[in-house]
Amino acid sequence: MSKTGCDEGGGNISEESPEKSPSERIEPLVLVKLGEKVRPETKRWLIRLIGAPQKDGGAALLVHPGEDATGDIIMVSAPRCTLLQATEELGLCKTYNTGEMETFSYDDRDNFRYSDNMEMFLTLAERQYIIKYELEGLRARRDVRIPGLDDKYTLQHRDNIWQKLTAAGVVVDTFPLHSKAKLKELSKSWYAGNQLSQPLDSVNAYFGSAVGFYFSFLDFYTWSLIPPALLGLFITYFSSEVQKEAMEAVAGSQAEIHEEDSGLSVSGHMIQAVFSMLWSTVFIELWKRRSSSTSYRWGTLHLAERFSEPRPAFHGHLGMNPVTGRMEPLFPEWQRDLRMALVSIPVVGLFLGMVILGMLCFYWGENQVMWLHEEWDSVVSQTLLYAPSVLHIVYTNVLATVYKTVAQSLTEFENHREESAFQNHLTAKVLVFTFFNYFAVLFHIAFVKQDVPLLRKRLASLLIVTQLVNQVTEVVVPFLVDHFVSAPHRKESEDDPQEDKFRNQSKLPVFPGLFAEYIELLVQFGYLSLFSCVYPLTAVLLLINNVMEIRSDAYKICKLFRKPFSAPVANMGVWQIAFEILSFVAVVSNCWLLTLSPQLQRMRHEGQMSSADIMVIAVMAEHVLIIVKVIVAALIPDEPGWVQKKRAHMQYKSMQALRQQNLPSEES
Amino acid sequence: MSKTGCDEGGGNISEESPEKSPSERIEPLVLVKLGEKVRPETKRWLIRLIGAPQKDGGAALLVHPGEDATGDIIMVSAPRCTLLQATEELGLCKTYNTGEMETFSYDDRDNFRYSDNMEMFLTLAERQYIIKYELEGLRARRDVRIPGLDDKYTLQHRDNIWQKLTAAGVVVDTFPLHSKAKLKELSKSWYAGNQLSQPLDSVNAYFGSAVGFYFSFLDFYTWSLIPPALLGLFITYFSSEVQKEAMEAVAGSQAEIHEEDSGLSVSGHMIQAVFSMLWSTVFIELWKRRSSSTSYRWGTLHLAERFSEPRPAFHGHLGMNPVTGRMEPLFPEWQRDLRMALVSIPVVGLFLGMVILGMLCFYWGENQVMWLHEEWDSVVSQTLLYAPSVLHIVYTNVLATVYKTVAQSLTEFENHREESAFQNHLTAKVLVFTFFNYFAVLFHIAFVKQDVPLLRKRLASLLIVTQLVNQVTEVVVPFLVDHFVSAPHRKESEDDPQEDKFRNQSKLPVFPGLFAEYIELLVQFGYLSLFSCVYPLTAVLLLINNVMEIRSDAYKICKLFRKPFSAPVANMGVWQIAFEILSFVAVVSNCWLLTLSPQLQRMRHEGQMSSADIMVIAVMAEHVLIIVKVIVAALIPDEPGWVQKKRAHMQYKSMQALRQQNLPSEES
Repeated sequence: MSKTGCDEGGGNISEESPEKSPSERIEPLVLVKLGEKVRPETKRWLIRLIGAPQKDGGAALLVHPGEDATGDIIMVSAPRCTLLQATEELGLCKTYNTGEMETFSYDDRDNFRYSDNMEMFLTLAERQYIIKYELEGLRARRDVRIPGLDDKYTLQHRDNIWQKLTAAGVVVDTFPLHSKAKLKELSKSWYAGNQLSQPLDSVNAYFGSAVGFYFSFLDFYTWSLIPPALLGLFITYFSSEVQKEAMEAVAGSQAEIHEEDSGLSVSGHMIQAVFSMLWSTVFIELWKRRSSSTSYRWGTLHLAERFSEPRPAFHGHLGMNPVTGRMEPLFPEWQRDLRMALVSIPVVGLFLGMVILGMLCFYWGENQVMWLHEEWDSVVSQTLLYAPSVLHIVYTNVLATVYKTVAQSLTEFENHREESAFQNHLTAKVLVFTFFNYFAVLFHIAFVKQDVPLLRKRLASLLIVTQLVNQVTEVVVPFLVDHFVSAPHRKESEDDPQEDKFRNQSKLPVFPGLFAEYIELLVQFGYLSLFSCVYPLTAVLLLINNVMEIRSDAYKICKLFRKPFSAPVANMGVWQIAFEILSFVAVVSNCWLLTLSPQLQRMRHEGQMSSADIMVIAVMAEHVLIIVKVIVAALIPDEPGWVQKKRAHMQYKSMQALRQQNLPSEES
Repeated sequence: MSKTGCDEGGGNISEESPEKSPSERIEPLVLVKLGEKVRPETKRWLIRLIGAPQKDGGAALLVHPGEDATGDIIMVSAPRCTLLQATEELGLCKTYNTGEMETFSYDDRDNFRYSDNMEMFLTLAERQYIIKYELEGLRARRDVRIPGLDDKYTLQHRDNIWQKLTAAGVVVDTFPLHSKAKLKELSKSWYAGNQLSQPLDSVNAYFGSAVGFYFSFLDFYTWSLIPPALLGLFITYFSSEVQKEAMEAVAGSQAEIHEEDSGLSVSGHMIQAVFSMLWSTVFIELWKRRSSSTSYRWGTLHLAERFSEPRPAFHGHLGMNPVTGRMEPLFPEWQRDLRMALVSIPVVGLFLGMVILGMLCFYWGENQVMWLHEEWDSVVSQTLLYAPSVLHIVYTNVLATVYKTVAQSLTEFENHREESAFQNHLTAKVLVFTFFNYFAVLFHIAFVKQDVPLLRKRLASLLIVTQLVNQVTEVVVPFLVDHFVSAPHRKESEDDPQEDKFRNQSKLPVFPGLFAEYIELLVQFGYLSLFSCVYPLTAVLLLINNVMEIRSDAYKICKLFRKPFSAPVANMGVWQIAFEILSFVAVVSNCWLLTLSPQLQRMRHEGQMSSADIMVIAVMAEHVLIIVKVIVAALIPDEPGWVQKKRAHMQYKSMQALRQQNLPSEES
């Protein structure tokens, strides 16, 4: 029943009213770039396929073939009917006429607000994603030869057409088009002025919920840094005051001041450590609440990805899906688990081992050249001093590049049914590796070398250097490139045909995804929560960095890249788990670092406490803090009460509907 | 719509066919015992109320007034229509004509198997619970004076009638009746023979799912004890072998044997500890899987308690429930949270503090009398030696009794909407206290006194004494009481009227609930997982105990008590969480105990390892084990794949139903 009532199909935009340019009548949403050698008959076939009704195996979209039939672009838009059906299929929530958000139902469309005006009803990002969804979901109904192509590209029954066309070089690129007017409006309210808050709903509307969630998290995280930053400032100011006093009172009893200072410093560290451990829990829990209410507002609380078609690259034996009762490829769960256990995990472990190996070789090499230098002390040996660092950097970078490709193929091999599962597994793999890469050295210093001053020095320099490098690479360089290198090449005049402007967008680089942005935040959060007690100003530096980061990230995504497709998502996915795990590791790390604090070590040397006593205290503190964290996390519900009620109401309604559905004619 | 089609009501069993005795025609399921001074007009009014259709505010049940109108009992049964509607309301799943379990829908009743034969369709326990549910759910539709009662018992609008009648002394007792034939059959297949497996489905059918889950867990737990029992036997045998060898080779090098022995014993302890930690995780995770598939089989996977009427004692301002849209008392969540935070938790904490205080006083007193005895050494001082123990036992028992009442009122005060929430909070409160009471002394010995030999002695004696005491109090005493004291009083002859036999059941003691049974298992599990490494034979003793426990518990519930009402439940509730928490505490406890093992202590004294080294090793082992536990728990899904699929299918169907429901007439 899901496909009834919409079978008139999409058709050709230009066919219907040839006298108007496409952009004046229906805004093209997605541009499909074809290969240069594509024959006109192939293009015609493709246009017909995209426009054909879904009952005939088409995508029921609106197509404009560009200025002429031989051009290498196709512009695609979507008619109301296709959009509404896809909205139901994706499980998006929309405003009902009561003002509440309800999962959209095609049969009940007239009771949803704005359901006659697609520009109001769906966001730009949603409409563009639906087009991608329909195009990539195209499957051959029977064996078909594609006109103008080799026989080896003949479509078999249920072949994914878009994948085949990409493999054959017919489709080179598919990307959503920027809307200049909306983009201008968005950038004005986002990063052009001095505003403190971001227009998150507009970001979601323009870029989709994945990007929206990133900026919402960045926003929340930045403002959450204020309490630890204030505490850090306070502690730094106070302990330097004490130090100054100590200097001034140098004539007085040395021992007394010494003791006072050490006492304060220990307690300062402890306050900092305990505070940051509890802060991180409250932060994560409150973010979950904000995330779920954001998800409600953006209509992604009840996504139905599990119940829709599997992602295009998913393969398996054709069979009946036991959940939906549809025929589709099936792949047994145990086989995926087996592949993960026997292939993915060992391979990831191997790469992590290679990171450690690299680090050990680096330390070994450094010792060797130091020794050599001491022995010979020549120019050659002085140059050699840099060799281990250089080699280690090269090794690390090569390893990271190789790993990314390997992670991609491993995740493909795991054959996930849903796009979100695929993304989460891929992210998790890269995340573990990257995180390990960043923190292996710091952990080594903290736990093996047990050298707190070095850790403090390293942390401070990392924080400052990373920030400078980031700001330069993220904002300054792209801005310069954009202004002086790229811009002249794609200068546009008002007189250019609209189509050329669209075509120009394909010259922008592809948006690299949010991975780098998220990992930056995670690494920051790691510095802050794992090692904050050795360097109290961490939060201050991060706060300054993030206020700028918001602007630079916004500028980047708006100006410097093609618009990305963005699937509707209900939360940050695996990133949220990563932040949560980190906040637990933080407790262990902080408690350990406190045992290494110089004051405690001195007490140990002076015989006031045995090292076993210190250990017992640290372990007890750790256990208490972890229990407190678990309890706090359990006590703060993950969803605000009103979202819980909406969810329960939804379940109640579906239960009622299920009870009534079987005998609709019996209703009295 | 939920109440249409069933408004003919129940009525009076005897009115319809006065020539037959009630038991021959419709089996009475529940007996309502009235107060002795209840006037006939009150009884008549009550009978009319119970039999009246639900649209008139009645319970739509079948009533038999006993031998005459003035007797002090009413027997209640339920007609098909009321049963079916309540089945829908409770959200029970029943077998559909496809053979799958589906949530029952009244409108679709004809497609469910056996829906024309209530004895097959619903279990005895379910039918009896539904009668209780209907009776206790009776609410006054308007202000009504109850005939034959004081004006102070006048019913106001929406007053709970059953509560009022109980308060007025009209209703003294409501309990389900045993079915002699079914009980005989059940006991034969349960505990009469030497069978190893329990007839769990029959237990569920007869006693309901709460009891069913207890016995299912007991069963699962008992068989799970086999691996640790085997390991314990193996370790005990092996280490005594080594000791014997050591004895024999006493002429040889003393030091060598000594070392060998200690090495083995440490590794034996370690194997035992690591094994029991991992075993407990796997055990809990596998139980969760078994629990969910059991719940599917028993039709309680989709209970709709949240969506039905609040429990009778729930009070609040009348308002619209935002989830179901019905008018009912509402009580804000934050107020309940506030009551828990400001009243319940401090009071519970106070009582826990009093347990500790009692323990400290006991130790202080014991030291005092020891000192006195040494000083004086008279008969008086010798008698005084027992005083602390006696006082402590009295104190503990008084405290426990007071606490139970306090916990009950606290939970009432928290005003939970659902019966299951009420039960879980009550259980959790008593559980924490009882557990604390049992383990405070053991923890004190292990972690404050750090006296492993004493702990071992204490544990062994507790295990053996507890088992003997349990077997005696649970089986032998009740059996003797039943056979020689109670039985003669309620001897029945075949000629007695059926009604007297029913009346006799009211002389049996009330079933005390499963709390004592569960806490026994939990304490056992605590001995096993927390301290098993000091006494490897724990599992063996527990295994023997539990095999007998299954029989004694079964005998008890079948023969010695009134049949209890049992609400349908989907799992063990708070008990499962308690077992899970305990299995985490076990890791900490075992790792700590290993540091106290005599061999490691000797190594410390001999200077082979510093105590700080031992601590570091123990802490690292603990962290690794906890991480392994968390990962194992995350990797084993809580539900078997097929249950997950059924659940997803259910959600898919409700989603589809929700989408279609609004326009049922549009179906083509």
